Parts: sequence; structure tokens; C-alpha cells
Amino acid sequence: MAVRVDLNISLDGFATTTDQTPENPFGEDWARLTHAYVSTRTFRERVMHDVSGEGTTGVDDRYGKAYFEEVGAEIMGAGMFGLHNFADDPDWRGWWGDEPPFRCPVFVLTHSAPRPPLEFANGTAFHFLAAAPQEALDRALEAADGKDVRIGGGPTVVRDFLKAGLVDRLHVGIVPILLGRGIRLWDDLRGLESGYDVTSEIAESGVIHVTFMR
Amino acid sequence: MAVRVDLNISLDGFATTTDQTPENPFGEDWARLTHAYVSTRTFRERVMHDVSGEGTTGVDDRYGKAYFEEVGAEIMGAGMFGLHNFADDPDWRGWWGDEPPFRCPVFVLTHSAPRPPLEFANGTAFHFLAAAPQEALDRALEAADGKDVRIGGGPTVVRDFLKAGLVDRLHVGIVPILLGRGIRLWDDLRGLESGYDVTSEIAESGVIHVTFMR
Repeated sequence: MAVRVDLNISLDGFATTTDQTPENPFGEDWARLTHAYVSTRTFRERVMHDVSGEGTTGVDDRYGKAYFEEVGAEIMGAGMFGLHNFADDPDWRGWWGDEPPFRCPVFVLTHSAPRPPLEFANGTAFHFLAAAPQEALDRALEAADGKDVRIGGGPTVVRDFLKAGLVDRLHVGIVPILLGRGIRLWDDLRGLESGYDVTSEIAESGVIHVTFMR
Repeated sequence: MAVRVDLNISLDGFATTTDQTPENPFGEDWARLTHAYVSTRTFRERVMHDVSGEGTTGVDDRYGKAYFEEVGAEIMGAGMFGLHNFADDPDWRGWWGDEPPFRCPVFVLTHSAPRPPLEFANGTAFHFLAAAPQEALDRALEAADGKDVRIGGGPTVVRDFLKAGLVDRLHVGIVPILLGRGIRLWDDLRGLESGYDVTSEIAESGVIHVTFMR
């Protein structure tokens, strides 16, 4: 029953990108940041619903599989759900179509107007709440029913949970590119490593997987 | 005849530390940032003049050895030589005692008052000059006589040479600690990876060695 984070970041520490446009809401940098991850067989099956059996099966895919294992609830920021891009659209249902890959309760932290929950046939249910990290985590832990809770992102939300000492396992996939701009994951986290074992491994793709575990 | 950089940085990208005092001119963070490197047999022999044969002999030591191989001249900033700490001391001769580990001409970039060269019996000679990166590099390449030139640091000087496109091989030892403050190596280097092959490996110490090579 651990609280977990998985994020892709650039070598210069950026976990979000800044070249989004209405036409390309993730931006081109996002594609570069997530290329190794979206190339895995697990991502293609679980997120893209691609049952061709294509996709990489090496180290990146091992982390991709672990990403979805044993997660009973997720917490994410309003931006990750898309509320910053579609603030005025009461019908916005997230980026993921009719089968969001979560398949569990997802708590979306937002201070904007209350929204009713959104339920999907595959078990995903988005709940919107204005809550501090500990309070949101209590809700998510209860919903997770003994399984893990993932703090999904974005980096500002992740940092809030890290600063509050609420994260048991932090996994970052460091992509060896320099973005030069965006939101940094690591700001203001001096000394985070104390209290964690830190291990690393290199994937075939060149991504450096670093895990903080306590 | 390559232009090379080797630096230790923290996971959050800081290549210098900020807790220096007159009594502890490197600060405690510096010890944590360089612990794996100063533990190598090569560092102990070459810099500490410790001939006991102690020190690590794994991946970190391989990079430690490579650090000194085939370098015919070095360029460093005034801060790395110590001119910021000892600006008013005309007799300051660097941090390294009577046997500086360079054993080659070292060009110290400074805009302060001209200083005469400092020569040591082991072949190290410090030359002080006010020059832009390309001009300093031309001087160093001539002095290196066909061997490599290393840009020693600090990070601001390294960044100037990287931005000017003058570096052929950049090796960073990423130490899995978060310093939270200092001078970042990576600022303002968006897209640096294009034009380089980037490879990584993990040392026994946990240090992640990343090399940009063109």
C-alpha cells in the first residue's frame, strides 16, 4: 500500500513542456519526452488499445508494466486532466477517450467550480476535489482498498506530495535531451534523497531510470 | 585533439555548491558531490599523492583515469582557480599545493589585474588571460601540441564553451543527490544533444555517467 510517482523528465529536469498550442495540446517536446515510453508494448496495449503485439519489450516496458500494476487509485492535478486547456467546457472528459487507462478512481485536484464525477465502463472514475495533499491522499487510500496510490502529475502536484513527505516510491525516466524550459520537477527538493534508497538503470532506448524507494 | 569537459553534478543539475565559508572553502555539499570521484584510486594517487594503492577501481575510477589521459592543456574559470576567494592575495597559487595534478599549461580566464604565469616543477603552468572562449581555446590548442584540451570548469565557463559549440566530448557524473541551490550546468542549453551521441552507464557508487560525444 505504497504511494508512488512515475514521471518522465528531461536531463535538465523538466517534466512539462511549453510548446503546446490548441492544435497540438501536448506540443512537440512532449513527444520527444515520452517517445521511449509510448513505444513500449505496454503503453500501446493499455493506452493506445493496440493489440498488434508491437512495441518494445525491454527495460522501458518493464517500467511501463509496473506503472499500471497494483494501483488502486490515482491523484492528478487539474492541468494533467486538461482543465487548464478546457476550463470553459463542462463536457470535457479528459484526454483519454472512452477507455481511460487508469481503471480505478482518479482524484483530480481543482479549485475551479465543482464538477460531478465522471464514470467510465472500464472502472475509471474521475472525482474532482479541492483538497490539500494529505486530505486528497486519505481519500485516495480509502478508495484504493489496500492497493497503491499513484500521484500521476503534473510536476507541481508531485512536488507538493514529495515536499509533504507522502511519497514512498519515486520513479523518474530521465530522457537524455535538454528542453531548456518548462516546469522543473526538482525545484526546492534539497535533501530529498535522505530517507530513500536511490537506484538507477539504463534502458536500451538511452532513458535513465532512477528510483527513490523507502 | 578533442575539446573535453568532465564535471560532477547533482541530480537536480547543480555543478557548484553554495555553502562555502572562508574556513571551509569548498563547503560540505562539495564533499557529497565529489565523494565517489575522490574515492577513486586515480584521484587518490594523482591529486592526493597517496601511493598506498587504496581507492576504488570500478567504473568511477575508469572515468577518473580518462580524466587525466591525453590532456595537453586546460582552461578554467577564475573561480575554479580560487581568484574569487583570494582576489586580494597576489601570492595565491591555487588549491592544489606544490604539485597541481594538471601537469600541463592551464589557462585561467580572468578579467582582474594581470598576473604573471605560475610554473611548477611537475609541468603545470598557470597562465592568466582575459579572452573569449574561441580565443582562449586557440591558445590552449596551440599549447596542447596535438593532445586534447579540457575545459575544467566551473559550470559558467563550461556553459560558455558548450553554447559556442566548442566542446567535442562532455562527460557528467550525475550524483543521485538533490542540492536545491547553486549554479546549474544545464541552464539555457536547449537542444544541446543534437549533434552528439549520448550514452550513459551506472557506476557501483550509484553515480550516473552520461557522455555527449560528437
